[in-house]
Amino acid sequence: MSRSGKDVGDGPRIRRRRLPSLSRFGLRRGAPTLGATLGDVRTLVAQLLAGSESSSQRAAASQLVDRYSSLPDDRRRAVLRLVATEFGTDRERVDRAVAALAEVSGPGASTTRVDAERALRLALTPAYTRLGPLISALPRGVKLLVDLRADLLVLGRREAELVALDRELQAHLRTLFDIGVLELTRITWDSPAALLEKLIRYEAVNEIRSWEELHGRLVDDRRLYAFFHPAMPGEPLVFVEVALTRGIVSQLPALLADDREHTRPEQADTAIFYSITNPHSGLAGVQLGNELIKRVVDEVRRDHPHVRTFATLSPIPGFRRWYDARPADADPGLPRADDSGIAIDSVDDDRRASLLRACARYLLEARTGGRAADPVANFHLSNGASIARINWHGDPSPVGVQRSYGITVNYLYDPRAIERNARAYLGDGTIAASDDVRALVG
Amino acid sequence: MSRSGKDVGDGPRIRRRRLPSLSRFGLRRGAPTLGATLGDVRTLVAQLLAGSESSSQRAAASQLVDRYSSLPDDRRRAVLRLVATEFGTDRERVDRAVAALAEVSGPGASTTRVDAERALRLALTPAYTRLGPLISALPRGVKLLVDLRADLLVLGRREAELVALDRELQAHLRTLFDIGVLELTRITWDSPAALLEKLIRYEAVNEIRSWEELHGRLVDDRRLYAFFHPAMPGEPLVFVEVALTRGIVSQLPALLADDREHTRPEQADTAIFYSITNPHSGLAGVQLGNELIKRVVDEVRRDHPHVRTFATLSPIPGFRRWYDARPADADPGLPRADDSGIAIDSVDDDRRASLLRACARYLLEARTGGRAADPVANFHLSNGASIARINWHGDPSPVGVQRSYGITVNYLYDPRAIERNARAYLGDGTIAASDDVRALVG
Amino acid sequence: MSRSGKDVGDGPRIRRRRLPSLSRFGLRRGAPTLGATLGDVRTLVAQLLAGSESSSQRAAASQLVDRYSSLPDDRRRAVLRLVATEFGTDRERVDRAVAALAEVSGPGASTTRVDAERALRLALTPAYTRLGPLISALPRGVKLLVDLRADLLVLGRREAELVALDRELQAHLRTLFDIGVLELTRITWDSPAALLEKLIRYEAVNEIRSWEELHGRLVDDRRLYAFFHPAMPGEPLVFVEVALTRGIVSQLPALLADDREHTRPEQADTAIFYSITNPHSGLAGVQLGNELIKRVVDEVRRDHPHVRTFATLSPIPGFRRWYDARPADADPGLPRADDSGIAIDSVDDDRRASLLRACARYLLEARTGGRAADPVANFHLSNGASIARINWHGDPSPVGVQRSYGITVNYLYDPRAIERNARAYLGDGTIAASDDVRALVG
Amino acid sequence: MSRSGKDVGDGPRIRRRRLPSLSRFGLRRGAPTLGATLGDVRTLVAQLLAGSESSSQRAAASQLVDRYSSLPDDRRRAVLRLVATEFGTDRERVDRAVAALAEVSGPGASTTRVDAERALRLALTPAYTRLGPLISALPRGVKLLVDLRADLLVLGRREAELVALDRELQAHLRTLFDIGVLELTRITWDSPAALLEKLIRYEAVNEIRSWEELHGRLVDDRRLYAFFHPAMPGEPLVFVEVALTRGIVSQLPALLADDREHTRPEQADTAIFYSITNPHSGLAGVQLGNELIKRVVDEVRRDHPHVRTFATLSPIPGFRRWYDARPADADPGLPRADDSGIAIDSVDDDRRASLLRACARYLLEARTGGRAADPVANFHLSNGASIARINWHGDPSPVGVQRSYGITVNYLYDPRAIERNARAYLGDGTIAASDDVRALVG
Repeated sequence: MSRSGKDVGDGPRIRRRRLPSLSRFGLRRGAPTLGATLGDVRTLVAQLLAGSESSSQRAAASQLVDRYSSLPDDRRRAVLRLVATEFGTDRERVDRAVAALAEVSGPGASTTRVDAERALRLALTPAYTRLGPLISALPRGVKLLVDLRADLLVLGRREAELVALDRELQAHLRTLFDIGVLELTRITWDSPAALLEKLIRYEAVNEIRSWEELHGRLVDDRRLYAFFHPAMPGEPLVFVEVALTRGIVSQLPALLADDREHTRPEQADTAIFYSITNPHSGLAGVQLGNELIKRVVDEVRRDHPHVRTFATLSPIPGFRRWYDARPADADPGLPRADDSGIAIDSVDDDRRASLLRACARYLLEARTGGRAADPVANFHLSNGASIARINWHGDPSPVGVQRSYGITVNYLYDPRAIERNARAYLGDGTIAASDDVRALVG
Repeated sequence: MSRSGKDVGDGPRIRRRRLPSLSRFGLRRGAPTLGATLGDVRTLVAQLLAGSESSSQRAAASQLVDRYSSLPDDRRRAVLRLVATEFGTDRERVDRAVAALAEVSGPGASTTRVDAERALRLALTPAYTRLGPLISALPRGVKLLVDLRADLLVLGRREAELVALDRELQAHLRTLFDIGVLELTRITWDSPAALLEKLIRYEAVNEIRSWEELHGRLVDDRRLYAFFHPAMPGEPLVFVEVALTRGIVSQLPALLADDREHTRPEQADTAIFYSITNPHSGLAGVQLGNELIKRVVDEVRRDHPHVRTFATLSPIPGFRRWYDARPADADPGLPRADDSGIAIDSVDDDRRASLLRACARYLLEARTGGRAADPVANFHLSNGASIARINWHGDPSPVGVQRSYGITVNYLYDPRAIERNARAYLGDGTIAASDDVRALVG
Repeated sequence: MSRSGKDVGDGPRIRRRRLPSLSRFGLRRGAPTLGATLGDVRTLVAQLLAGSESSSQRAAASQLVDRYSSLPDDRRRAVLRLVATEFGTDRERVDRAVAALAEVSGPGASTTRVDAERALRLALTPAYTRLGPLISALPRGVKLLVDLRADLLVLGRREAELVALDRELQAHLRTLFDIGVLELTRITWDSPAALLEKLIRYEAVNEIRSWEELHGRLVDDRRLYAFFHPAMPGEPLVFVEVALTRGIVSQLPALLADDREHTRPEQADTAIFYSITNPHSGLAGVQLGNELIKRVVDEVRRDHPHVRTFATLSPIPGFRRWYDARPADADPGLPRADDSGIAIDSVDDDRRASLLRACARYLLEARTGGRAADPVANFHLSNGASIARINWHGDPSPVGVQRSYGITVNYLYDPRAIERNARAYLGDGTIAASDDVRALVG
Repeated sequence: MSRSGKDVGDGPRIRRRRLPSLSRFGLRRGAPTLGATLGDVRTLVAQLLAGSESSSQRAAASQLVDRYSSLPDDRRRAVLRLVATEFGTDRERVDRAVAALAEVSGPGASTTRVDAERALRLALTPAYTRLGPLISALPRGVKLLVDLRADLLVLGRREAELVALDRELQAHLRTLFDIGVLELTRITWDSPAALLEKLIRYEAVNEIRSWEELHGRLVDDRRLYAFFHPAMPGEPLVFVEVALTRGIVSQLPALLADDREHTRPEQADTAIFYSITNPHSGLAGVQLGNELIKRVVDEVRRDHPHVRTFATLSPIPGFRRWYDARPADADPGLPRADDSGIAIDSVDDDRRASLLRACARYLLEARTGGRAADPVANFHLSNGASIARINWHGDPSPVGVQRSYGITVNYLYDPRAIERNARAYLGDGTIAASDDVRALVG
């Protein structure tokens, strides 16, 4: 349903692209009509929430979804705002329930207290929370809900009611996408072309430019794993690309170049996670990536017992923005602004050292709310990884230079340290890093 | 996990039988040990709820589940009671949140009001609600949660804290078993034997006595459909048995006898739902049966367009208990007590008419909380069915006589009336019935 | 198509039972009509063989098969005889081709010689060989051909034309059932019930009396493997039952009793093949059993690397008949005739030794055409097995006593010796046996 | 195994391209070694044919295949020649068998006559026929045999022994690829990418230039069907591309252009078979294409009952060669030789009429051995199709102009006439054609 995708900072890159028209016959499921007004929607939602769980409710939900899908973006936002504000909590009911709770709060009256607490909680639960299950029960409804949330996220986080609506939706999606329901699948060159086509379209970290290039990422010393949901068949929820290597690889070209060297899988000792993609912004915050990494580590260890080292080769998406925004006199050596085309090949040793030092400082010290400011760093550190290496010339592509002056980072997933690292990071923000990295910041 | 099954009145019969030991090698997953004390559990739960969502939390959940599974029934109840009472809401935190809400309730302060409402709701949400997702994320965790709830239901509905715990668990299971995730499957003689064995074990309405009898319920003019959940492969959640017939069948023997007549599927005009089984008491209240009936009606209509009538042939489990408990002088014609062996074949016409009248009255007038007192009647009426026929000698088996003096009922699912019926019944309790049935009560 | 099954001595036991009527609705595929005469068949076959490979030929083949299937057994035989005699070779054409070959037999005329040889070979190829491919190309045609051959085998081996027809049919079936096309499948309790039902019906060596007993042969320390053909889905062509044990088991009750001991698969060191069944007599001579054993040995070795010993526990179907037919004064110790109920438990030591000695002699020395006279012995020895043990009281069941005075034999499949053994046995008839077995014959 | 593919005139185009190296690691399955001599091969084959069917034979066959696969093309031919000449028939044995037959040819001696005929036939059967089953029984052996025959066909048809060897191989492949064993599959955009990649590589009639173009041939109003063999999974044996249209389409661009119009499948009344590809030259003569067309007609009729007309849009590969080779004064209007670039757009009406007339004459009158000279025409006419239309400007691509001055033909598959047409054509060569086409030749 969402037409305008947007990156959302949920750790690894999230990307939603405009889906191609489903039909070439001019058949559009619900083309926008003038008659679709907020009044209609208000009536439909009210009917829906008034009903009990009969099939008439199902029909109304289906109608609501069709109506919504056919609206242009601006009208969708108006609808979401209407739902968030008009079908939230009933303030008077809340006040009555608060009063009722106050009356039973005497000691010993436990039964009534429990009931009164529950009544208050129900009063505090926005009416629209009941819409989620009604929509996800429709055919293709789970996907619709994911897309709906993507629309909602585009509206931004400024209005309290929209934020509240988003929180409820996220909670419902978290339960729907319970890890116990997800299926881990290795994707190979024998997978359906329709699925592989989606990978090409979705891959956000290191673009896949052709079917041949995709082929190269699925065979020999490469693996690609994805999570799927039973109600969204053929739709990868999150996928990770892995290279089996000898030793940790620090330079993207060594992994991606057409003429790269191949490693025999049975001789590999290391698995490099070089790309993690969350294609659905509507699933932001549902925490699929960390589960995927854990499960893939298990899979790779089982299939390749000699692989002992698990690490990423990751971008540092926030570094350059942070670096360029520093006080003008902080580090005069490097130009800023308008110079994405900086010739990193001709940077002299001093400036190089200065940049690497700045990057280590960014990763180790720049914080947002106690967590690492860089979203990818925050993602891996939350999972219990440590910062193992910071690599000059790790990604010399224009995008890489634009993002982080071509610097890349390896995060290390050491099975023996993962729990300890995660606990420390999620506790007081302690970041695990190798001595080499620490040495950079002196 | 539940060892002692019990019928739970969720519309159609629910039955859980003791599962056979998984292993013949003396391998018991977590045999009971003395060291498993409530203190251990308290510590584990506290750790779990204190943690953030790292893999250490997963490990603690796994440990908790193992510990619980190895306990004997009485200790399990003690554990559930402990969780329900010690990990519910924090009264002081609630009071503080109520106070905070009172402060921001001035007009115009909408943002803060939304936040304060949310803070109060979170305070009112029992801590143990966070255990559900942690358990369902474990391998086989969804099944564990269903079994856990079965244990909980055995404890009864008298203690407010246990009822509250059950409500949270039910809510979590409802989302996990969202209809959008369930898979409708027709079960045939080509289905896995391990699955068919479960049907034999689970069938609660009309017992399946042998593989041959099961075979007969899967072929020719018979159909059997079930819902499955992706995280519980091979485990039917609810199943319905259907006979394709010419006209509505009112007598069970005509459906079940070994030498019954067969109908050619292409000549059938009616589908009789003659058995609906919910094997998992832990899913009581999750409302799978009504969805199953809707989906199966659609399936049968698609496969057999000439089938126009959809009806059940149902037991009346509550009739005899109700009848026998009436005032002694109400209807002196029939003996009560201790006479399950009543010779219904030799009942004279007057008594027969009297019994049928009483049965119609029971179905149309006996109420519990505004709903039909008979659980099966309540189930079908809630789905929008109507009472079409009341049949003397419909089930002459000892069980049938014991349940309802051998009387059966046909509920009619008329696609054109389902919504209207359901709305009326769920609204003010109006029961739809045929003229014949109404005529019985005069 | 064959109604009257018969054991055919193709190594392990072959059994065909009467299949149940396919339909309960009185629908019989082609009920016998009076009009089905040999004249009709003659015309149809002639049309078929005259045609080129167009769809009209397909239709005629289909018609022929329907006609044939609807005939009672005696008429079927008449039809087979008609085909064998009237659509064989054309003697005059053969004579002309012989004459033509004689003319070109001069040296140097190689091209013409090759052509003349081919022309003669074609003249010598019976016309009916072209029927096979036409029938196997029909839907379910491969199965029809197998059944047709079963009918043919019932007619016996006395008439040269029928034997010739059988040889052609066998040759065609051998190519159709090329090992490269067959699929090895492990059958488990998760296999379709319709398939498991066939196993119960087919098992010929050690009867399966119930679904529960079958279950016991599929789980824990038991394995069951079968070959399938893509054109006969769901139809096991040959299947073998395997027990994983510690050491070689010599007594059937130790394998089959309800209260037998179980071995943990990971602790087993031996695989006992205790039953091999060829359900389709129409596949006699197609050599599926030996391929199955080879493939299953590979499977078991792969799944259970610690299993090092592969042996059978086999019946000796021909022993008692051979023993009882020996000269009356040969071994007066044991009664013959009419005494299948011989009380082997009360046999004294001398007679026991005498019987074991006789059995060893039977296995090692009784020959038919240079091969072991016992069909099961011949089967395993041809595969390269050796005779490892002869077991008193190996099968104390009435059938076992009736077959071989309760004696069983273990054939050993030693991967290192299989080739050598097979070469020797198929070469000059040398039988490999253990020292213990040899010692018995002194 | 064959490296150098070649078109073989088996009706529709057959193409084999060089397969890419299976491995990028420098692992070549059997790289050529000097030691592989004809002597080795001779010994191996002799051993193989001397052996009985034990596993040692299997090993020898495997060794032989490895040895062969590693040879360069010229050595392969020498090996094939060796097998064809040294392991054919034994002339002396033939002569003895002829003599033996002569002796028993008296009347009444039927049994002996049958045996003597069989002995002679066996003597006339080349020894190498026994190699086929040994090779096809190997893992991947069926594919090896197909490739082996492709090698053989490259050697040409001049040497009688090679022709004889090919005939035996073809006969074996015909039985292995019995229509009863083949699986018809519709290929869609959800098929494995590895399979779709093969379609792109194999398509010989109308080149597929990209994945996007292939996608367009699999969706909406397009269908693609293929036959598969169970022993060659993922390998299409023959495939046909179908367009669902309104009315017969005569111009290729209307079917293939990127901006072509789409037909809604439910509104189509015609199915156009616009491309049939036999990727495996080793299967020449196995007659897969005609079976495929029959089965696809059935499939399309079942899925789209409103589709009533089945026709091809076919190239005329032999026309231009035939036309350009006519006597110089036959039709001076058109240039020949070296002018594939003929500007057919600027041809005047007279020349156009003259070309169409010549083309009709070519299709209706040019014969090779009584059959239509054009291989595609011969294929469709043999299947029972008729010539419906001859289309100017049907294929204006350079290849189309090169092949047939851009002319295409529609063959019509009229289900009611197919049998009659095939019988007539295969009988006396009568070609079915529409009045319009007949009118062209006057």
